[in-house]
Amino acid sequence: MKKALTFDIGGTKIYSTIVDETGSVIGEIDKFSTPKTLDEIRKILKDQIAKYEDSVDVIAIATAGAVNNENSGVIGSTGNLVQGYSSIDFQTLSNKKVFLENDANAAAWAEYKIGASRGSVVSVMLTLGTGVGGGIIINDKLLKGKSGAAGEMHFKMYPDKRRKCSCGGWDCFEIYASGTALKIDAEEALNNKDVTTYDVIEGVKNDDSKMVEILNRWQNDIIIGIKGLANLFDPDCVVLSGSMAQFVDVKKVEDEVNSDIVTTPTSVRLATAGNYAGMIGVALLALR
Amino acid sequence: MKKALTFDIGGTKIYSTIVDETGSVIGEIDKFSTPKTLDEIRKILKDQIAKYEDSVDVIAIATAGAVNNENSGVIGSTGNLVQGYSSIDFQTLSNKKVFLENDANAAAWAEYKIGASRGSVVSVMLTLGTGVGGGIIINDKLLKGKSGAAGEMHFKMYPDKRRKCSCGGWDCFEIYASGTALKIDAEEALNNKDVTTYDVIEGVKNDDSKMVEILNRWQNDIIIGIKGLANLFDPDCVVLSGSMAQFVDVKKVEDEVNSDIVTTPTSVRLATAGNYAGMIGVALLALR
Repeated sequence: MKKALTFDIGGTKIYSTIVDETGSVIGEIDKFSTPKTLDEIRKILKDQIAKYEDSVDVIAIATAGAVNNENSGVIGSTGNLVQGYSSIDFQTLSNKKVFLENDANAAAWAEYKIGASRGSVVSVMLTLGTGVGGGIIINDKLLKGKSGAAGEMHFKMYPDKRRKCSCGGWDCFEIYASGTALKIDAEEALNNKDVTTYDVIEGVKNDDSKMVEILNRWQNDIIIGIKGLANLFDPDCVVLSGSMAQFVDVKKVEDEVNSDIVTTPTSVRLATAGNYAGMIGVALLALR
Repeated sequence: MKKALTFDIGGTKIYSTIVDETGSVIGEIDKFSTPKTLDEIRKILKDQIAKYEDSVDVIAIATAGAVNNENSGVIGSTGNLVQGYSSIDFQTLSNKKVFLENDANAAAWAEYKIGASRGSVVSVMLTLGTGVGGGIIINDKLLKGKSGAAGEMHFKMYPDKRRKCSCGGWDCFEIYASGTALKIDAEEALNNKDVTTYDVIEGVKNDDSKMVEILNRWQNDIIIGIKGLANLFDPDCVVLSGSMAQFVDVKKVEDEVNSDIVTTPTSVRLATAGNYAGMIGVALLALR
């Protein structure tokens, strides 16, 4: 059976393992803190590749940042990774083929192949974490756009400049639907800079009506965003993943989206491919 | 050379002509008021088909409403057409194949084949008229979604219920970017229910600063919407068509979109395929 040595390169951690062509994780999960220099990042990749490349068919890398349409490198800047990251020539790291995909796209592919969106003609995945990632699959292909950068959840929630997004623009979906957004919602509602996402979640558990209201506002913004995506893409399903997805009332989101839709009803689901979805997805893409 | 008898069925008019496989209109343009009964609509189609079907290879119909993924019929309700319109069995109208596509999708295809978006990997077309239509082409295919209804420009401009859209929902792009929207913008700004879109356009011609402000607000909402679409689809170009497109400062829209984009720069252009783009596009699709 074919196998991939697979990585997930994020802003804080780099993970690595071996995944086979059925999407099963068959290696140890190796974990590293993401270094602050290009050379150190390269060294981690090289060391892992030296150890495992003889036993695999391909090297697969899920990474923060947009990946080009050739799946050979990263384009543009990648916010939470060291400057110049996109200059890494990944192809020189191994004698085997090195295949890259954006981490959110890779995770969406794992959901499509072995997870919550299996069998969909069109699926949209939203990764609700510190930020919001997106992966859209249409007719058995990831939506990549002209350059590879498509699927960015930076459509606007207001037209009149209210909240600055981490991308530098204003009022993107990301800054109303992420964990960061929930904290901002709480700060605004309570006029308290020190309130945390954790405080909101704990408050909701204890039926604190103010905290319930804050969570509902955040969830409503997620609903508003999904309505737009459902009308644009007419997807079979919208999959929610990431650390914040567990705080969403999925059934309520689905009902509200479908009560106000001009296309056809969609299904809203939690992701099921697990924490290593990015590594699994990029491995399945690379082994395709 | 292959030819299609082609129709454009809208809320007020039905057009018909013959188009060849290069996209050239080679027939007379026949024009009818759209009847208020199904039987009368059927009769117009049947009469035209009886006249021309022997001289063409296929019947092609661009229509208001969503068209299914088999291109054989209309799904769901179609607002400005008679109730029950989607029950018409178009396939029984001719011995030749009858091929349907949504009018905005068809026009987008004409732009892609013979107009402003020729050669694009990904293109988004917005038809700015009384409402807003949309057609999205990705890798040589129209985005149709699971049911055929994708590409609806009903993503939200506000999350908090300000302006009711014709679809029954709140705050859709359509109700901020259409001709109807410009009238509402003017009504709100001037507190005058009788002001028309025409008044705004005339005012702008005469440098009336209030009218210029109203037009700018409308144009800003169009910019906000295109930013979202550009980040989702990473298109080569966004094409503006429809009766309201002429009032948009295309260069300014392009500059503002590209000043706040997380994907890669896009080009904003006016449509060039002309008034019969819908009939041409659906003919080209049917003759494909």
